[in-house]
Amino acid sequence: MPTIKDIANRLGVSVSTVSKGLNGASDISEELRQLVLDTAVEMGYSTKRSRKEEHRKLCLMIENMEYLTTSDFGYDIVLGFKQNAFRYKWDVTVLPMTPELQLEEKYDTFLLKHGYCGAFLVGFALHDEWMRQLANTTMPTVLLDNFISCNPNVCCVGTDSYEGIDMVVRHLHALGHQKIAFLNGSLYSLVSDQRQEAFESAMERGGLPVRKKLMAYGHYVPESAKYHVPGFLAAGATAIICGNDLIAMGVLKECRSRGLRVPEDISVVGFDDIPPAETTFPPLTTIRQERNELGRCGYVMLNSLINHIPISKTLMRPQLIERGSTAKVRATG
Amino acid sequence: MPTIKDIANRLGVSVSTVSKGLNGASDISEELRQLVLDTAVEMGYSTKRSRKEEHRKLCLMIENMEYLTTSDFGYDIVLGFKQNAFRYKWDVTVLPMTPELQLEEKYDTFLLKHGYCGAFLVGFALHDEWMRQLANTTMPTVLLDNFISCNPNVCCVGTDSYEGIDMVVRHLHALGHQKIAFLNGSLYSLVSDQRQEAFESAMERGGLPVRKKLMAYGHYVPESAKYHVPGFLAAGATAIICGNDLIAMGVLKECRSRGLRVPEDISVVGFDDIPPAETTFPPLTTIRQERNELGRCGYVMLNSLINHIPISKTLMRPQLIERGSTAKVRATG
Repeated sequence: MPTIKDIANRLGVSVSTVSKGLNGASDISEELRQLVLDTAVEMGYSTKRSRKEEHRKLCLMIENMEYLTTSDFGYDIVLGFKQNAFRYKWDVTVLPMTPELQLEEKYDTFLLKHGYCGAFLVGFALHDEWMRQLANTTMPTVLLDNFISCNPNVCCVGTDSYEGIDMVVRHLHALGHQKIAFLNGSLYSLVSDQRQEAFESAMERGGLPVRKKLMAYGHYVPESAKYHVPGFLAAGATAIICGNDLIAMGVLKECRSRGLRVPEDISVVGFDDIPPAETTFPPLTTIRQERNELGRCGYVMLNSLINHIPISKTLMRPQLIERGSTAKVRATG
Repeated sequence: MPTIKDIANRLGVSVSTVSKGLNGASDISEELRQLVLDTAVEMGYSTKRSRKEEHRKLCLMIENMEYLTTSDFGYDIVLGFKQNAFRYKWDVTVLPMTPELQLEEKYDTFLLKHGYCGAFLVGFALHDEWMRQLANTTMPTVLLDNFISCNPNVCCVGTDSYEGIDMVVRHLHALGHQKIAFLNGSLYSLVSDQRQEAFESAMERGGLPVRKKLMAYGHYVPESAKYHVPGFLAAGATAIICGNDLIAMGVLKECRSRGLRVPEDISVVGFDDIPPAETTFPPLTTIRQERNELGRCGYVMLNSLINHIPISKTLMRPQLIERGSTAKVRATG
């Protein structure tokens, strides 16, 4: 575990400044205090909690999602949640989850037994056992990218897919594209469904053709590209929007292997803006999900539920990041 | 973000003049101060409010909504917001708003000039001048029951109308009602539109008939009832869902004046659960909006925006409150 001195070195401030930041002293600025706290969490610092505080525990359960390295989609979500929770003196346990673990014990029992006041669930699948139990849980629970009806103890957070897809379609339309293809992520996912609906309605709003041959569900992996790109090209697609950046990377590769230049011959757009999106060739135009803020928001919502504010759903703004993989449509002929 | 120096350069005045203009010092002319503020807004300047507590000011603007007495819809919203803000050491100014006031000054200029770090807007209408300006505001702004696309400085809060209406339809369906009428609030309101859509899809999900003769838009006042109840009765309605409790009170009166007993002859449901709903005869079954929590949520979201967490939308859980105005459908014949 890093010491206060390590944090001071990283920030280039004195040990006493770090100490003040961690202890909530009033004679440093609020911005500096936040920076000290955020850095402490990022470096894995954890205080020895006083006895009073030892019961303030939250659990972040994560499944079906990479989060251990900075280029992983989940990394900043976990970090943001921990940073915000730490600031308000909560201990956070990050727990990798499996379907098997969910069969061993009931969700509420598990949280109660381990003294958690609430949990943030990331990457859970619709068919997970604990997802089913959430309909009736009495434990404050925040869920990423999912929705549970009618239970005031559960809140969903996510990025507004609707607005994100709409931004991309308008961006491509403004560049002259008409035959826009959409290579979505997995079927049976709430997020995929929303993006599909968003795509079709954004195309209709723009007066653009919605064609079955230009839409497909794949999986959230690069390999999806090779199954669907050939069909899109045969149907005349001049741009391909992808369900995430990984799929888009597969599409870039697939296009290149067919002798097509991006963006001269075809435009490609990702979703998420994970760090590698900036370093692809060409750099990927994508819809950014503010993952650190999504994690912070997860904490704010969990804290609201714990304080009996029955929030059911919170959406974050997406952001269009224009890079080199999109350009004006090539003149026909 | 531009600095004070940038503003000074643009205007060809000294840094201290700009500083005086932004801080409301009395030794520069009002014209110059206005020019400084307008330029600051135009350049996208926003004060990093010194976190000294005397400058921590928020504004709650309220329009088209009663809020001064405890039975008013807005009372608890205002209270909840102030309570949560007070807890975190913010000063709150509650400002009754008019369309005229909005023509006198730009929204951002108004907030900057008065030193507000952000605002909670309650009861604004779609055609309000300041609503139009929200598309591009740089000030953290939370809006009740409305939505602004694509601006990360604006967040909307409200109650999930979809879930609320769905609960009522299922409640009435379980009591045997099939011919359910919906007397909505005003046209050209986002909330009315959502409830209309929610009503039609809840009816369809329940396999119940959606008939034009059983749906109408009115206004959010009791007088709406007399124009639409006769038609509903003629079309065979056995239950009437209303856009708010005030409309439902009008419906109760209208039914009584026609010799119909509630709930024996017809069931009536309100929306909101304002305090008078409990004291009508019979007491009103209604969809509760947790207004104090809505106000608290408004503060949480505004604070999130101020801390650069770009939340776009947050919904609260509605709750079905079953009282005496709904009962099993009367056996036909």
